Formats: sequence, structure tokens, C-alpha cells
Amino acid sequence: MSSSPTLPPIPQGYSLGGVYCGIKRSADKLDLSLIVSDRPATAAGVYTTNLVFAAPVKWDRALTPGTNLRGVVVNSGNANACTGSRGDADCRRMAELAGETCGADAEQLLVLSTGIIGEFLPLAKIEAGIADVAGKLGRGADSLESAARGMLTTDTRHKVSGRTIQVDGRSVQITGMAKGAAMIGPNMATMLGVILTDAAIAPAEAQRLLSGCVDETFNCISVDGHMSTNDTVLLVANGAAGGDPLTGEVLETFRVALADVCGELAKAIPADGEGATHLIQVEVRGARSRVEARKLAKSVSESLLVKTAICGADPNWGRIVSAAGYADVAFDPALVNLWVNGMHLYENGAPLPFDDAAASQNIRDHRDTHILLTFGEGDANLSFWTTDLTAEYVRLNADYHT
Amino acid sequence: MSSSPTLPPIPQGYSLGGVYCGIKRSADKLDLSLIVSDRPATAAGVYTTNLVFAAPVKWDRALTPGTNLRGVVVNSGNANACTGSRGDADCRRMAELAGETCGADAEQLLVLSTGIIGEFLPLAKIEAGIADVAGKLGRGADSLESAARGMLTTDTRHKVSGRTIQVDGRSVQITGMAKGAAMIGPNMATMLGVILTDAAIAPAEAQRLLSGCVDETFNCISVDGHMSTNDTVLLVANGAAGGDPLTGEVLETFRVALADVCGELAKAIPADGEGATHLIQVEVRGARSRVEARKLAKSVSESLLVKTAICGADPNWGRIVSAAGYADVAFDPALVNLWVNGMHLYENGAPLPFDDAAASQNIRDHRDTHILLTFGEGDANLSFWTTDLTAEYVRLNADYHT
Repeated sequence: MSSSPTLPPIPQGYSLGGVYCGIKRSADKLDLSLIVSDRPATAAGVYTTNLVFAAPVKWDRALTPGTNLRGVVVNSGNANACTGSRGDADCRRMAELAGETCGADAEQLLVLSTGIIGEFLPLAKIEAGIADVAGKLGRGADSLESAARGMLTTDTRHKVSGRTIQVDGRSVQITGMAKGAAMIGPNMATMLGVILTDAAIAPAEAQRLLSGCVDETFNCISVDGHMSTNDTVLLVANGAAGGDPLTGEVLETFRVALADVCGELAKAIPADGEGATHLIQVEVRGARSRVEARKLAKSVSESLLVKTAICGADPNWGRIVSAAGYADVAFDPALVNLWVNGMHLYENGAPLPFDDAAASQNIRDHRDTHILLTFGEGDANLSFWTTDLTAEYVRLNADYHT
Repeated sequence: MSSSPTLPPIPQGYSLGGVYCGIKRSADKLDLSLIVSDRPATAAGVYTTNLVFAAPVKWDRALTPGTNLRGVVVNSGNANACTGSRGDADCRRMAELAGETCGADAEQLLVLSTGIIGEFLPLAKIEAGIADVAGKLGRGADSLESAARGMLTTDTRHKVSGRTIQVDGRSVQITGMAKGAAMIGPNMATMLGVILTDAAIAPAEAQRLLSGCVDETFNCISVDGHMSTNDTVLLVANGAAGGDPLTGEVLETFRVALADVCGELAKAIPADGEGATHLIQVEVRGARSRVEARKLAKSVSESLLVKTAICGADPNWGRIVSAAGYADVAFDPALVNLWVNGMHLYENGAPLPFDDAAASQNIRDHRDTHILLTFGEGDANLSFWTTDLTAEYVRLNADYHT
């Protein structure tokens, strides 16, 4: 969906844009985005659990969930991480500058940063960039695209997703953007997401819905298993569509649409994974709980041997089953079954005879690989998305240099 | 030490050897080893915790710790894993055949297998191989080398280590061999270790010492983080050096020597890691406990981004510190310091200025890389050994095929 020429509409009450301000070396990329709501909005956030977290994570955590937010300012090319108290002050200054463009206080702006860590923000460039983008905010598809591009680092394409739902006869729009493709060089790329809606939602509900949706989507993807210092997903809800804060069935309809948007954005990240030639869905069924299903799916998804096997179009059931075996989840191996791209390779704890050449060709012919592992422990199901591991990934991350 | 031309002596009372019997395709490799003790021996074992474990793991677990063992039979090229009840019967038959060569019962022989999984053992070849090796058992350096070679899979060299200690005026010998270099293709390579001694040790003490030593050595290495179905380390103690079972200070002297042998064998595995160009020691100091120190060291050791950085000779402190940050261990980031090959790169939570080119050249010039991370949480220290991640590793594991 990210490469679709038709972008979703921008929710009511928001204007946005992205510019190049010189943080990145290459002027054909954008590196600063601004999103402004014309009225105070509810905002919720979900953040990295890394103990080494960046200044903007600290800033946003203190402001969410909240009810008086006016926008989000994003820079790429510099993560403002491991920058100490000067990093905190720089982050506040960035919020202050963005707030000045719309008559808001610093504490009404959320901040996202991604890029190199351990270097101070180039504040003069950011100040000029904010002034520049403030004069270019708009509500067209090009504004949405430039805002989405301003948050990218090593991504090869921008990632946007949207849903429109009907609430009491009114249209409510949910539109999100995300970035992430792994990490590279001395930079620390990151997973960032911003989801905007014109629905009215109480802050506690916004936080609950976002946490739940992130758990099922952004927390079910992996490119290299390395958790960033800056990972952040924000939900901003300004109520511009009118009506009272959503409750009951309508809130549930909203939740489903939000989960769809989060799911599309999350999948777009491994789909754009560095050097990847396959997007791999690891689907676990029949686990005792979702927590155990996630552990099993994650263990398979992060196995270098599974990832290199898919790169080599090898339907290597042994690597897959044994990666589940060390996930620290109790299960009966005699009840395990495995399908790869619909081919049944492993039945009740033992391999089945299969046509190696056909299974291999099947993996080679499809960018999407589906690994389905079923257990006999319960009825919890979960899917995890990851990439294959290629020599190109290693080259990108070893050869790229300080 | 593994490539040293001088091998350690074989402990008294053991004879051993290795042959080629046709399990592997290439006749210039060996694939069957036999170790026989001329008298009943105490044996202890430490095994994979993978829920998907091979038939020989099940067999050996039932026999250790024990006091009536007569030997170890090892095959490479076939792991006898995921082979169900026929696999169990084949494993018993292999023990039976090996026992017949020395007048012992099946239950007096331990069995190790490594290689391809999901295929049945070629029993006719193994039977011929056992008959062949039984006629070639010896006590010379060539016998030790051939036994050590018979357990290898993708290893590029055999791995042997030994120590001699004095106990009450008698010489006691500890000599071990190991295999492991990662996993490859449809095969599942594995970490195996066999440590022989002519000391007399009570079975409970043997198990306690081995478990402790493995915890500090074989459990502190990682090539790709993929735990095998067959991982096994055995200690066999036949008492041929004479004297009563070791106790007290003498037992402690033995433990230190055993830990040295285990440590040398364990380090030899990542040193021979597939495609590796660097052996990386991740040393953690100042953790709250050894369990937490291990989690921190393991998280850094298994980060693809750390491993690719070292491959690219990049002293990437950000990747190292952030990998510690997601180890699920609480620590104060402001008390973290980092040195790479003795260069202080990160001080009390913030990067230090350093000479990039010199640091990079330093990594490039040395096959051994030393990452020292210090925390301010306690006094627990631990070292973990791993390899860098190279494009060659990916090629080996993606291109090699069923």
C-alpha cells in the first residue's frame, strides 16, 4: 500500500508538510516534518522499552496520554540519543520552535527524532527548517507524502495507510505514516509511527486502543531484532469530525480500523527491510496464550538460520522447528505441524516426504513467504512479520561506516 | 590451541580412534569415533534445553550421572533428530554395537550424533564403522586426533584441550575434545564436547562440576544464537590414575583444571565460526548478578548490528550500548562505560571523542576483539564469546542447499 499512487485523505483539522533543512547529507531527501492540528487534540504514545532512550522519547512520555496537544515535529538524520541534558534542552527547543508557528506552547508539541546517535541536534538547521515547513503546510496528497518522507532514514519508500469509517452518519478518518527499515552504519534507524484521526476520543481510551493495536502490529515485526533507542508510535485525535468522544460499539469500530492502519504500516517496515528479498509471515496457531504464541513466533522470526534459509529458498523445516524448540515455551513436540507456503512439511513431530525442488521454487517465486506452525497447546494464534537475511544486509551494515 | 601440533596425553585406561564409514559424502573426512575405557567409569552430562531434542540426547540423559559407563560412540553426518521411535531404536542399536566391541552392555555406552536431521541413521554403515574403528583404537596422538576429527561437521579444524594436575603425588590427566562451528544447510551442526579423565570422582560431584563448568564456558558462547537439538557435553572419569574419589581441596584443583579445558574448547568453537573474521569477547563487569551479566553479554553478543559492525571494523558504541539496553536487565545508563580493544569510547552514559580511523584500524588489525562494558550495579562479572557476522556466513547458510 505504501507505493500506491493514491494516498488516503488527511483527517479534518490537520495540516502538514515536510522539507529538507540540511540534517541529512543528500538534498534529494527530506529531513524535517511538521504536523499541526487547528485545535487541541488528545494524544497517546507507545515507546521503546530500551533503557537507553532518546531525549524525544523522554519528552513525549511526559506529555502522553494528554488532551492539549497541537502537533508533532519530526526530524530525521539525527536521533538526539545519548546526548544528556543538552539533548533534553535541544528537544524542548525544537518543540518550542514548532509551537511558535501555531501559537502553542512547547508542551503542546510532540517530538520525534531518528538518525545518528551521540551527536547534538543541529539546532540552527532545525530552526530554519521549521520556519520553512510552517509556510508550506497543506492538506493535499503532496503534503501528506512530504510529511511521510521527512521521517525516513534508510527506507526506500514512504509508508502511509488510511481508513475511513462512519460514526453516527459522520465520516471519521484515520491516516497514519511510519518509517523503519532496520538500522545502518553508525546511525540508529528506528521505527516511528504517527497516526492522525479527526475522531474525538478520551485520552485513557486513546492510550488503551493504541497500546493494544501496537501490541498486535508494531510489536509483531522484526528486521534484525535490535530495539532502537527512539522507537515511538503516536496517536493524535483532534475531534474535528465532530460529536462526543467515541464509546461502546463505535469505539470498537474505530479500534478495528486503527488496528488495520497499524497493521499495514507495521508490515510495510519489514517489507522495506534492508537488503531483504523476502517478507516472511510466521503464523503460530494453537499456543497456550498470546504471550507464548509471540515467544514462539519471535524465536522463529529472529533465527539467523531460518532467515538465511528463506534467503536461499530452502524449505528448512529443521531450522524452523528447532527455533521454536528453544523459545522457552513448553509444548509437546509430537503435536507440532508445519506448512511453508501451504506445503505440509512436518506432521505431528516428524518430517513428511515432499518435493524439495518444488518447495524451493515456490519460495524463490514469491516475495511473500508464509510459515505456519501449529501447536496442540491451546487456541492462541499470532502472526509475526520479518525478513530474510541476505549478504546485502551484512554489506549494508558492515561496509557502511562512520 | 586446537591447531597445535602437540596434543595433550590421553588419560590412563582409555583407548580411542576415528574412521570414515560413509555417512558423510567426502571420504577425506572422518565420521565415526569410539572411546573405550578399560574399566567402568563415572559419567556426567549436560544437554541442550531445546524441546526438540535428538534420540542420543534422550539416551544419554537416562544414563547420566552414572557409575558403570564403558565408553562413548560418536557419529557425524547424521543427527538422529526428529526420527521418532525408530530413532530411539537406532540409537540403542548403535550403543549395543559399540558395547559388543568391549564386552559391555548397550546401557554402558553413551552416544553422540551430529549432522543432518530428519533422516534415519545409516545403521549398516555405522555397524561397519564400529567394527573398523574397534580394530584401530589406540593411545597415541594420532588416535586422539582421529577421534576428535570423527565428531566434526562444518568445523575447519579439530578442537582438543588438556591439563595435567598432581593429586597426592599422582598425575591426573584431563583431556577433552569438542566440535561446533554453527549450523549449515539442511544439516544442524551442533556443539558437542567429551572430556575424559583418569581421576576418580563420585557421580554427583562429577555432575555438579561439569554443570558448573559448562555454565561458565560452553553456555557463554554464541555463533548464531540457534540452539541445536543435539548439544551435549560429557565428562567421563574412570579412576585409572588410582586413589579414592577426589574431595575437598583436591577436587577444587580438579575443578579449576576442568574449567580451563572447557574454556579452551568452548572458545575454539566461535574461533572456528562459519565465515567469521573476528572472535569477539564481550566482557561485562559490575552487573548485579551473574544471571544479569549473562543476559547483558548475550544481548550484545547476539546483536546482528554489533556483529556486522565488528565485521566492518566499526567501533560502533551506539549499537553496543543500545543492545545492552534491551537485554531486559535494569541498570542506570549514566553509570555505563565502554571500551573496545582498550579504547575508552563511552563514559558514564555519553560518548567520548575518539580517533575513528585508529579505532577502526585497531579492529581490522586484530582477529580478537575485546568489548568491555562496565555497569555500576554490583560486582558480578562474565565474559561471552561470539563471532562477527559476515556476508560469507550468509552465503554458507543460504546458498548451501538440501
